[in-house]
Amino acid sequence: MAAVHEGLVVGVDVGGTKIAAALVDAGGGIRGRVQRPTDTSSAELTLQSIAAAVDDAIASVGCPRESVRAVGLGIPGKVDPERGVGVLSVNLGWRDVPVAERLRAISGLPCAIENDVKAAALGELRYGAGRSVQSLIYLNVGTGIAAGIIIGGRLYRGATGMAGEIGHAVIDRLGPRCKCGAEGCLEAMAAGPAIVARARAAVKAGCDTSLSQAVATHGDRLGAEAVFTAAAAGDAVAASIVAEVAGNLALALQWLIMSFDPELVVLGGGVFGGGADSVLLAAVRRELASQSAQSFVAREMFTPQRVQVTQLGADTGILGAAALVALS
Amino acid sequence: MAAVHEGLVVGVDVGGTKIAAALVDAGGGIRGRVQRPTDTSSAELTLQSIAAAVDDAIASVGCPRESVRAVGLGIPGKVDPERGVGVLSVNLGWRDVPVAERLRAISGLPCAIENDVKAAALGELRYGAGRSVQSLIYLNVGTGIAAGIIIGGRLYRGATGMAGEIGHAVIDRLGPRCKCGAEGCLEAMAAGPAIVARARAAVKAGCDTSLSQAVATHGDRLGAEAVFTAAAAGDAVAASIVAEVAGNLALALQWLIMSFDPELVVLGGGVFGGGADSVLLAAVRRELASQSAQSFVAREMFTPQRVQVTQLGADTGILGAAALVALS
Repeated sequence: MAAVHEGLVVGVDVGGTKIAAALVDAGGGIRGRVQRPTDTSSAELTLQSIAAAVDDAIASVGCPRESVRAVGLGIPGKVDPERGVGVLSVNLGWRDVPVAERLRAISGLPCAIENDVKAAALGELRYGAGRSVQSLIYLNVGTGIAAGIIIGGRLYRGATGMAGEIGHAVIDRLGPRCKCGAEGCLEAMAAGPAIVARARAAVKAGCDTSLSQAVATHGDRLGAEAVFTAAAAGDAVAASIVAEVAGNLALALQWLIMSFDPELVVLGGGVFGGGADSVLLAAVRRELASQSAQSFVAREMFTPQRVQVTQLGADTGILGAAALVALS
Repeated sequence: MAAVHEGLVVGVDVGGTKIAAALVDAGGGIRGRVQRPTDTSSAELTLQSIAAAVDDAIASVGCPRESVRAVGLGIPGKVDPERGVGVLSVNLGWRDVPVAERLRAISGLPCAIENDVKAAALGELRYGAGRSVQSLIYLNVGTGIAAGIIIGGRLYRGATGMAGEIGHAVIDRLGPRCKCGAEGCLEAMAAGPAIVARARAAVKAGCDTSLSQAVATHGDRLGAEAVFTAAAAGDAVAASIVAEVAGNLALALQWLIMSFDPELVVLGGGVFGGGADSVLLAAVRRELASQSAQSFVAREMFTPQRVQVTQLGADTGILGAAALVALS
């Protein structure tokens, strides 16, 4: 029986609204996936929701608790992995929370933490598209935008842990104001909420588009997916939003590729949830191909195989968290 | 006598028009600086000009040849430092030239080579502004634009040696066409020739500017320095060119800082030849300060002490080349 549970860890994807957890084996196999709402009414209650999710995952698999080696957590925001402290997380309302220490006390298991996007980059390296490379960039496009960077087979954090935090790079000084205060940040031009905002603006401006129906149906819950669906169905307004967003993401990709010269870039996050057949991915590829047709430098740097979409789907967060504590 | 010459190496800055060489001691002290034109009529003749410059430098100091440990070369273009091969250099007309092997045969001294901007980053780390840091980016703005990247106290080259080659990142799709084929590349918007082109265009358009006189005086030899001089003297047209170029360079700086999160960025190259009192540096600092005033993210990342101008002046190239072979 021991061999069955060998190298089991728990990966926990901690989000502002929900916590997803599962047991992960040495090969990246996932068992006992559970999900529960995040209680953000206090840091202590958030930690208790996390511990409960860990318990649920272990119980649902029915393996002995002793066979679980450790728990890895991917957390939104700024994290100090060495001290195991959640330094600042707007989504969780955390500031300097001793996560690893408290969780060990509650659950009795050793615990490692990292920023969720950085953890996801490690997940891609260990279990995903990056299994055969030593350098990769995981570009997460969801509610926010950030990159996790792997160099020499290890996570690269930079001098202050901010490496890859490109969401607030200004890409169009005439663009809309971002919540950070600047105008035309990458996030304000290409993240999920920006895509939705463009769809709403087009509808409000009276454009002839099927997005009017989507806005009427979904109301405040309208997501970027509705724009991709409309574009895929031939809606010209939706297609132009997708093309513009793809142009902005291609611009971020060119900087990342020219700066780091990585073996691979993996696209992920809610906005790329459609996987390899995503309308947005196709538009990003068209944009890079068009740059390559113009410029010999782009041709050398933007080879199609260099930019992929995650193969881990909705499990990217759990697998990234598991990679933090998986045996190397 | 031995102690005087201890740790002496020769640093050679190989440019398309001139070769500069000098002996460099362990502390970065420079002796016997020599300069000669680059003979680019054939790769063999270029190598002989380099070997002659090395001989001249050694002879001018009058130290015994045996006290020189090695020669380091900084070369424009793509270099394979492990094999000692100049892979591709448009300025020198080189393709797959076995530089290290041939120079050793001619001069009898061990020889190491690297791309000139990458070498300069090592020079900043060892002898310049980066002596107390482990990570820095050297941004060279001259005829071209590229960054040399130091991570963990070592040169970072990327998967194919292209890390930091950001000169052809597109920053304005409506910008002028670049020689690479794309439109609005960083180089086409902010390198030395782009600054001069803007000055000429302003004069041609009949703008009221002292640059008319500079164009008449210098003709084809007009350099970016003339634009800085005019801006410093209060010429509004020149000042607006400087502000625009500074905005473009600040954009590149934000991507580099947000991507790598380095301890330090050092600005160098012909365009920053004016040193710490440069008009362009002041404009870049104003641009970063203005972004910081708007955005709390920029405020955290663009601290004034993080962006400096090289302290090595015209010796950056020689010292960078010397750093390739200096004892660590």
